[in-house]
Amino acid sequence: MEDNNNASTTEGKPIRCKAAVARNAREPLVIEEITVAPPMSSEVRIRVICSSLCHSDVTFRNLQVPPAIFPRILGHEATGVVESVGKDVTEVRKGDVVITVFLPECGECIDCKSSKSNRCSIFPFKVSPWMPRHGTSRFTDKNGEIISHFLYISSFSEYTVVDIANIIKIDPEIPPDRACLLGCGVSTGVGAAWRTAGVEPGSTVAIFGLGSIGLAVAEGARLCGATKIIGVDVNPEKFEIGKKFGVTDFVHAGECGDNPVSQVIIEMTGGGADYCFECVGTASLVHEAYASCRKGWGKTIVLGVDKPGARINLSSHEVLHDGKCLMGSLFGGLKPKSHVPILLKRYVDKELQLDEFVTHEVEFKDINKAFDLLSTGKCLRCVIWMGK
Amino acid sequence: MEDNNNASTTEGKPIRCKAAVARNAREPLVIEEITVAPPMSSEVRIRVICSSLCHSDVTFRNLQVPPAIFPRILGHEATGVVESVGKDVTEVRKGDVVITVFLPECGECIDCKSSKSNRCSIFPFKVSPWMPRHGTSRFTDKNGEIISHFLYISSFSEYTVVDIANIIKIDPEIPPDRACLLGCGVSTGVGAAWRTAGVEPGSTVAIFGLGSIGLAVAEGARLCGATKIIGVDVNPEKFEIGKKFGVTDFVHAGECGDNPVSQVIIEMTGGGADYCFECVGTASLVHEAYASCRKGWGKTIVLGVDKPGARINLSSHEVLHDGKCLMGSLFGGLKPKSHVPILLKRYVDKELQLDEFVTHEVEFKDINKAFDLLSTGKCLRCVIWMGK
Repeated sequence: MEDNNNASTTEGKPIRCKAAVARNAREPLVIEEITVAPPMSSEVRIRVICSSLCHSDVTFRNLQVPPAIFPRILGHEATGVVESVGKDVTEVRKGDVVITVFLPECGECIDCKSSKSNRCSIFPFKVSPWMPRHGTSRFTDKNGEIISHFLYISSFSEYTVVDIANIIKIDPEIPPDRACLLGCGVSTGVGAAWRTAGVEPGSTVAIFGLGSIGLAVAEGARLCGATKIIGVDVNPEKFEIGKKFGVTDFVHAGECGDNPVSQVIIEMTGGGADYCFECVGTASLVHEAYASCRKGWGKTIVLGVDKPGARINLSSHEVLHDGKCLMGSLFGGLKPKSHVPILLKRYVDKELQLDEFVTHEVEFKDINKAFDLLSTGKCLRCVIWMGK
Repeated sequence: MEDNNNASTTEGKPIRCKAAVARNAREPLVIEEITVAPPMSSEVRIRVICSSLCHSDVTFRNLQVPPAIFPRILGHEATGVVESVGKDVTEVRKGDVVITVFLPECGECIDCKSSKSNRCSIFPFKVSPWMPRHGTSRFTDKNGEIISHFLYISSFSEYTVVDIANIIKIDPEIPPDRACLLGCGVSTGVGAAWRTAGVEPGSTVAIFGLGSIGLAVAEGARLCGATKIIGVDVNPEKFEIGKKFGVTDFVHAGECGDNPVSQVIIEMTGGGADYCFECVGTASLVHEAYASCRKGWGKTIVLGVDKPGARINLSSHEVLHDGKCLMGSLFGGLKPKSHVPILLKRYVDKELQLDEFVTHEVEFKDINKAFDLLSTGKCLRCVIWMGK
């Protein structure tokens, strides 16, 4: 890496630095020198401090069919320092500490101005290889070949360019390896309980799948005052981990005998859970979650990402008669710039637990170890430090 | 009919009177003499003034497989006068004018006490042949054979017995042939817009199917201040009828060319309707309604009753990413004893239109004409008067 710490030498110029490039599906990332172009209008170039690894990074490294594309720089849960800003950027300036959020918030469109939506309609969520506003890449490799972006962030690089719509300025006192978690997975889970479901004090919650997202749902439900938080998983070891995040009861999905999981949950809750969350990403489980919900007012929230083309199948009579609600939750229903700062404050106030999500930390040169750790299921979040 | 007007002669005794009995599937009802037992505890025996005919009555007259059962007395949207009350009934007394509601509200259970549910958990909704509380029939025919009840009401009889959970006392000044409409269909549609969806002033609404329920949804949406109410039907004549109930725009479902209806609605609304209602009873249409909804906050409400076993099929990615909500609406999400009186007041105050739903009226002896009228689709509501 060149000496880029003095921004006056780099502002407006390309920066050469190291990045971990996904060159081929299912293969380890390659750390190589790339060039990061200056930010265009409404864009920000940041020096990445650290990133946490999310399952989407693994999924897109392994994906062999579109929307997979190579070469690409993955990574999207990051903390960084603003190196320079493009034209029209007033929200942050050089030296500000920021986190990245994959879901854009332009602040100007009907959706961003509505309290009901978190889906910016100017920059709708999609897994694009390009920057959201200008539709081009800021990355080239040593041979001048264009490298694709990922989720508008691409933080597995010493420097990256991110649209101002995907950036939140934070208090620099907040540990960067905790703040970065709020860029995707943890926010999605906590937000799903808080904003999408609206979990209330005293309510009952069932969570299908105790990975990071499911545990973050538990953490969110705990913060909202739920008194019974049932974890459902095929791995009974998850109960011990879950207890740290508020899980009070456990259903071992593989050992319910002849009863479907929904029947077990209905018995445990005296009629069904108030809120059920599908965090596995299996469309057929959505029906089981739906069946586990309390008739009259139960809500089922879908967070898991199934394969393209997967279908959710529900009984028409059940939908009509049971008074239940089915909802999806993208980024937990959070409006990034309004709600993530609230979560950060709750972390600082020692209400929201973030530390417990970070089970591993590695240096940038060992980034492929992070992929291995997350793939084996032993890891919740592994933070990758870029170093000095 | 015996002279039963002097209740002192009938209280506590069986009453012989005329009823229209469904004896065989798909055959005309048979008007015959039956015996109506006195009300048991928490029950009320009423002299029926009039009933309106609902599609469920036609469906269950025609149904050849369970839950069909014969002989049965159909009818469930009724106005009547209390003839006598069983033990423990304090809510109404002899001479009170009441309407019947098929959905029970016991007032004591967790659901009835919750503002979130309208599904009484003591007497859950089902199409039972018996009274809800005692599980028996109050009807016998001339040969002493038991006749089944329908939807806990069975109002196609000069006298019937109804549980207090299914009765609402009304102002006797309200025309009985208007009040009875609120016992099922019209309440379901108006309530779906008002309570289930929570339609807001200025919002856009799309209604799939402009039968009585769909028109009642339009009426409810109009009352809630929706500014664009799009009716979707295969019969373009429905638009003229719909205009009376607030329908502002029409999509002729058979003539959208190569475009799906959802595409047409998305274009008409600049992105999708805020609220979509499926009132046809075709599970596959639910997906079209869902696709017609505004991303970010759109709600799809299912009101139509499809065949047993019908499935609703949605794309997992669509549910996850689009920020939409799918809900069913039983009795429009109304709590009968709390919300129906509000609708009656809005009728008296000339805000809620009920008169326009009554397209036909017949005498009791002509009840089978009412079935014919409703079956041909020319009729919204036909009121059947029991006479003196």
